[in-house]
Amino acid sequence: MKSISFKNFEGYKYIDGGVCAASGFRTSGVYAGIKENPTKKNDLALISSDTLCNAAAVYTQNKVKGAPIIVTRNNLAATGGKAKAVIANSKNANTCNADGEQKAIKMCELAADSLDCKPEEVIVASTGVIGQILPIEPIEKAMPSLVLGLCRSNNDAAATAIMTTDTFPKQVAVEFKIGESTCHLGGMAKGSGMIHPNMATTLNFITTDCAVSTDMLQKALSEVVDVTYNCLSIDGDQSTNDMVALMSSGLAGNKEISSDNEDFKAFKQALYIVMMNLTRMLAKDGEGATKLIECTVSGAIDNKAAKTIAKSVICSSLFKAAVFGEDANWGRILCAIGYADAEFDINKTDVSIGSDYAMIDVCKNGAGIEFSEELAAKALESDEILVKVSVGDGEGKATAWGCDLTYDYVKINGDYRT
Amino acid sequence: MKSISFKNFEGYKYIDGGVCAASGFRTSGVYAGIKENPTKKNDLALISSDTLCNAAAVYTQNKVKGAPIIVTRNNLAATGGKAKAVIANSKNANTCNADGEQKAIKMCELAADSLDCKPEEVIVASTGVIGQILPIEPIEKAMPSLVLGLCRSNNDAAATAIMTTDTFPKQVAVEFKIGESTCHLGGMAKGSGMIHPNMATTLNFITTDCAVSTDMLQKALSEVVDVTYNCLSIDGDQSTNDMVALMSSGLAGNKEISSDNEDFKAFKQALYIVMMNLTRMLAKDGEGATKLIECTVSGAIDNKAAKTIAKSVICSSLFKAAVFGEDANWGRILCAIGYADAEFDINKTDVSIGSDYAMIDVCKNGAGIEFSEELAAKALESDEILVKVSVGDGEGKATAWGCDLTYDYVKINGDYRT
Repeated sequence: MKSISFKNFEGYKYIDGGVCAASGFRTSGVYAGIKENPTKKNDLALISSDTLCNAAAVYTQNKVKGAPIIVTRNNLAATGGKAKAVIANSKNANTCNADGEQKAIKMCELAADSLDCKPEEVIVASTGVIGQILPIEPIEKAMPSLVLGLCRSNNDAAATAIMTTDTFPKQVAVEFKIGESTCHLGGMAKGSGMIHPNMATTLNFITTDCAVSTDMLQKALSEVVDVTYNCLSIDGDQSTNDMVALMSSGLAGNKEISSDNEDFKAFKQALYIVMMNLTRMLAKDGEGATKLIECTVSGAIDNKAAKTIAKSVICSSLFKAAVFGEDANWGRILCAIGYADAEFDINKTDVSIGSDYAMIDVCKNGAGIEFSEELAAKALESDEILVKVSVGDGEGKATAWGCDLTYDYVKINGDYRT
Repeated sequence: MKSISFKNFEGYKYIDGGVCAASGFRTSGVYAGIKENPTKKNDLALISSDTLCNAAAVYTQNKVKGAPIIVTRNNLAATGGKAKAVIANSKNANTCNADGEQKAIKMCELAADSLDCKPEEVIVASTGVIGQILPIEPIEKAMPSLVLGLCRSNNDAAATAIMTTDTFPKQVAVEFKIGESTCHLGGMAKGSGMIHPNMATTLNFITTDCAVSTDMLQKALSEVVDVTYNCLSIDGDQSTNDMVALMSSGLAGNKEISSDNEDFKAFKQALYIVMMNLTRMLAKDGEGATKLIECTVSGAIDNKAAKTIAKSVICSSLFKAAVFGEDANWGRILCAIGYADAEFDINKTDVSIGSDYAMIDVCKNGAGIEFSEELAAKALESDEILVKVSVGDGEGKATAWGCDLTYDYVKINGDYRT
């Protein structure tokens, strides 16, 4: 199974448990048979909180929005940012269907009935094929076993249930301190195609026991999404159904964070660590991917320009194919920098490429320099490729994540519906 | 060898000869050995005009520009839009090299010496790998045989010499009347990766004997590029070296076109026919492509919105992979429409997909409708796939061209430099 290398952050400890790492949350996942499937892979997930949570969410910016997106947004508006549960399915996006919203509301009602809460307190999400009617009966039938599963609270079962073409479940959790209180924050995510910057993201559910007000949850989420998921691209396609939802049970016992203070910064850092690592997992598990690509741009006129340039590099099909071929074809990096919609100084543009094994300087002041192709080839054998670009004397910095373009991307997407 | 289906336009006759179809032009192409190559494929092309031509050009919008782009732009500025020859090489883009401009100027000088014109009257272009020093010696040595080749005036030899990963030379020419004068206009183009809307285009050289002023040549070229090459995408990557150059020898004998009159419209239509068909050839011969995709959008608020939507569809990696798999996965079309940066009415969005064999309605008013998967599969077997999208009641229309995403795209680009 693929995995990523984890970086250390002082004061934060990686722990197990995913969305169950935080106090007050239970999860479950079952095979409901939303689409007939001989392997009986889980396709229905439930996250339940013992308490009514403060909740925040960000959504896809695609103008064609899945019905679950619309229903969830309405629900969070109706409750003023409160939620008690998440219900999510894979295998069907419930998008571009005439009865989509009706079905999404029904999913909320089914969860609410089982969990004794209001339908508006349920976050609903779907992922899978667009434009096929969602069968509600399998979900209805699966509810008892889904709810029963909460007793075992198996975060792996839920993380598996939201997977589509993902090859591994994606979960990260950390433990940290706010004052004297030990807090936990964990998340799960699904990939792995139709992923592109400037959207909210793929399906991601994050839970915490750290007490945070709804407003500050939303602020933290929006800020962190901007430097994590929005800096990710698998294939340039932006899904109709992407969502990140963040729920706080408040059970850690800390004084509720309700302003932009030191506690907020510590909380936001925990959220960043979890979302940044989930982002890297999503990149590494991009459809057909064999390599994670991490591009860091510095020296830009501001962070926005740096982000635009970094994203342009990791979105280049030609560069992505070169990484798959382990070919240090840096000209394609320069080309992608050149068509990025951002200012830079070509005469001060330096590029190095490689991995933890070795970083190779390939371009200095906008022109190629001699380098050892042998050393470069060796460095590019790694499954985590680093690109460092400096584009001038500015203070702007950003990192973007992507993956290589492979035969398997074409294979997976050449006939996804069957 | 791949080819495209040609559409008929009244008053215009397709003819042979490419850039030699127009009176006064001779071409040649030879193997200079710019990069050692056992197959000795031609890599150096020359187009020469008997008269000093009016000339116009458009260039890549990539901020990293190849040295030949800079030199050609300077030359046309110096002469006020006059040119007598084009020299072009493949195998090396002469871009991101410290001595790039010096080498590009040297190429102009070599051509000028041989053809007895001024170096500024030469258009220079290069295509190939970025960031490798261009060896000038092979070009110098090849000049005598290149010039000698003009006597045979072999347009195929020149069209082959500018090819990189193209699988066939791309040439189109038409005959048409301006008043009593019989005019000719023909072009050659190379593809086939690093091609994306919003640039000038790939290397394209177009010649005509129709007498047109430099200003009106530039006007026609800019207008036609906007609805042909700029509506083409192979892989979303925008090259550093793209250029379309248009030269008029004026030998057809018509009264010079110097204003936006009926003659200008007739000339522009000839240019459109040639460039539109070259665009379709470029799409069909996209790297690794097995199918041409043509997406026509109507009902948009204006042509610009229609073009944005059409381009979004043909740029979607997921849809491109589905076309390769001959899978009528129309949800991906809706998704791509949704993330296009243009207004549309989802409730009035209809989609049909197919080919000359059959067009299948798959989506009506933004929701899926039942259709015969069998008929769809049959229609998608064609090597020219049509997508028709209507997005509302507006007058805006546009067509964009692209190709499917295949294993071979990945193969070709995984190790292009070796």
